[in-house]
Amino acid sequence: MTSSSEGEFRVGVLGRGTVGAAFVSLLPGHAERIELITGLRPTISGVLTRADGSFEQILERSDLIVELIGGIEPAREYVMRALAAGRHVVTANKQLLSRHGEELWEAAREQGVQLRFEGAVAGVVPVIRVLQESLAGARVDRVHGIVNGTTNYILTEMARTGATFGQALADAQRLGYAEADPSEDVDGRDAAAKMAILARLAFDTPVHIDDVRYEGIEQIQPDDLEYARELGLGLKLLGTAERIGEGLSVRVYPAFLYPGHPLASVNGPFNAVTVESEAITEITMSGPGAGGPQTASAVLGDVISAMIPPASTPPTMRVLEIVQDVVSAFYLHLEVADEPGVLAQVAQVLALQGVSVKSVVQRGLGDQARLVMVVHPVLESRFQAAMGLIGGLEVLRAPPRAIRVLEEEFG
Amino acid sequence: MTSSSEGEFRVGVLGRGTVGAAFVSLLPGHAERIELITGLRPTISGVLTRADGSFEQILERSDLIVELIGGIEPAREYVMRALAAGRHVVTANKQLLSRHGEELWEAAREQGVQLRFEGAVAGVVPVIRVLQESLAGARVDRVHGIVNGTTNYILTEMARTGATFGQALADAQRLGYAEADPSEDVDGRDAAAKMAILARLAFDTPVHIDDVRYEGIEQIQPDDLEYARELGLGLKLLGTAERIGEGLSVRVYPAFLYPGHPLASVNGPFNAVTVESEAITEITMSGPGAGGPQTASAVLGDVISAMIPPASTPPTMRVLEIVQDVVSAFYLHLEVADEPGVLAQVAQVLALQGVSVKSVVQRGLGDQARLVMVVHPVLESRFQAAMGLIGGLEVLRAPPRAIRVLEEEFG
Repeated sequence: MTSSSEGEFRVGVLGRGTVGAAFVSLLPGHAERIELITGLRPTISGVLTRADGSFEQILERSDLIVELIGGIEPAREYVMRALAAGRHVVTANKQLLSRHGEELWEAAREQGVQLRFEGAVAGVVPVIRVLQESLAGARVDRVHGIVNGTTNYILTEMARTGATFGQALADAQRLGYAEADPSEDVDGRDAAAKMAILARLAFDTPVHIDDVRYEGIEQIQPDDLEYARELGLGLKLLGTAERIGEGLSVRVYPAFLYPGHPLASVNGPFNAVTVESEAITEITMSGPGAGGPQTASAVLGDVISAMIPPASTPPTMRVLEIVQDVVSAFYLHLEVADEPGVLAQVAQVLALQGVSVKSVVQRGLGDQARLVMVVHPVLESRFQAAMGLIGGLEVLRAPPRAIRVLEEEFG
Repeated sequence: MTSSSEGEFRVGVLGRGTVGAAFVSLLPGHAERIELITGLRPTISGVLTRADGSFEQILERSDLIVELIGGIEPAREYVMRALAAGRHVVTANKQLLSRHGEELWEAAREQGVQLRFEGAVAGVVPVIRVLQESLAGARVDRVHGIVNGTTNYILTEMARTGATFGQALADAQRLGYAEADPSEDVDGRDAAAKMAILARLAFDTPVHIDDVRYEGIEQIQPDDLEYARELGLGLKLLGTAERIGEGLSVRVYPAFLYPGHPLASVNGPFNAVTVESEAITEITMSGPGAGGPQTASAVLGDVISAMIPPASTPPTMRVLEIVQDVVSAFYLHLEVADEPGVLAQVAQVLALQGVSVKSVVQRGLGDQARLVMVVHPVLESRFQAAMGLIGGLEVLRAPPRAIRVLEEEFG
């Protein structure tokens, strides 16, 4: 490595998209303050873009590499080569970590360098650091997160204005809260990658994005939100990682929350994560989700931490089995013929599968009716079986719709 | 120092009150996990109680001292001696840090050892770590906190049930949310100590508890909360540390919050802190306030961090002037004679002091009336002058009451 001048700390930046550009413009204004804290003055040693720059030259001249290219390749190769060359790495690349995290953490541990990634989940909300450091001694039971700002904005707008999914998405795109191609956000894949990373840290168990079951919000209808309001519930795209016996379940799904839940009041493009543990009860952290300046600020925090002390990379300590079938309460929306005996038929199918009804609202609409119910927690496979049977009933006028309901009620 | 056996990390504990006892019983169950993370096995090398143990012997046998005695002396002396002997120190002592923090941090810096204190503010809510590490590079504009669980519980109950302050306090004592002598909590001194510590970290400026203006909640009346509900506001005992020009204001005061404010939904014995900075917008962290197991868990997180890397102690970088007179909006409650011209008299006094009225509710009650108003933000000294003049009006039937209103409305 080309040696740095005395008291300098050289940061090489890969990628100059929204976050990369924000980081490069953020650093100089903070250099003096960082020098006071760390004793070292950070400088940008090079920026690699598609059109310009050589990775080898930047690597040679840097003490730390900031990877903001995104995607798998060449990001994976560059990060591996930087770690192998003994450089610290800071990345905000959730797809990379949720697919190749084990390989990267292993390389960092072997080289005794740092691999930091606060910017990969929930922007500037310091959930990675809190899981890795504050809660390093705690036995975490569950992590709930609203980790995708686009979908939270869309759901907030649908609830507030009665807009359809398509209308709210168009609004989000106009305001810059959704990308031109929003599919990874709205189908839940983006949240699934982030939950894989959070689950890895909270439970010391390798979690690949393919271990995460995910659903999105495209199928949510305005009247789901309207009935939910009648029942006093709010709708969020929720990520959950939780210990179930000796297993671990990681999933992303739309869910109704009761108004006292700590995540119920997280609206618009905000992110929030709640960590539950017997020793601490629960901690909730919230703030703006990904955005250029916010993510750049998280990246800068990681760079400063790398300049101070060698933090440990989380070793794998225990391998929990990944659980797919869990217990949930559900909201169930049925469009049925308005004739005698319909409720009885539906109730019988549910009862046969062991699904117990908590509340029902029925409304006539000409010759058909809407039947909206909330059922008590039940193994999801049982509920899905009941849904299959109900879908086959002759009195059904449209496919049944179901959304999970978070059962806990809070203070 | 007596040398430790290979791979051992010896923790000496001073004090065996609620937190001390919880810490001593928490550690053994986590020792194996901590050894996996840090490579060192933590052991308790001794516990100093009033009746038993010698500080010198415990110091001699420890790599780190946990100070949970509370109060100033002998806690200050022990912490200073431990630092001078080159031991890391973890403390949850907010009074000590808010009075002697500079001396202690200076000693830790000189010795190159760590002084950690997550447990001193907001229990397990990791606000100290986030300010010291995640936000080390950010220019913080403001910190708002609900940092006293006792008063938040009391205010929540007063709002929920219509109870008086005295009734809600008695409830809190019965449930263990308030101590037998609750004066430090209810008069705002406890919150003031915590805000001094947060302000120190957020603004790199030494802040002594005597620099913090504080008010408590003893004077809050049930009908303040009732009128507030009509105006759509909730009441919290708020701590604020904010940059005002080149100055810094740190204060604790009851304040009404609009429902969208991130702290408005923090109820019961919970604590929460919001950090605002242009680069990050805002981060909010919440969780249970002080409690034996929660604070012990924060202490354990600090012990683990001390075992891993030498984190830096915050140097003083800049001395902001402490500002006492700030701009606030107010709710004003007046009991007045129900006769013509009263509102005009009050309005004239306000206008003369430059206080502008935002909304008014007037209600007759026999021969007297209640006049409740919210005024626009004004320099507090001007508002206090107006209050003095209004208090002297002949039409007043009781001393005027005022409570600050947080003006920002959120998403």
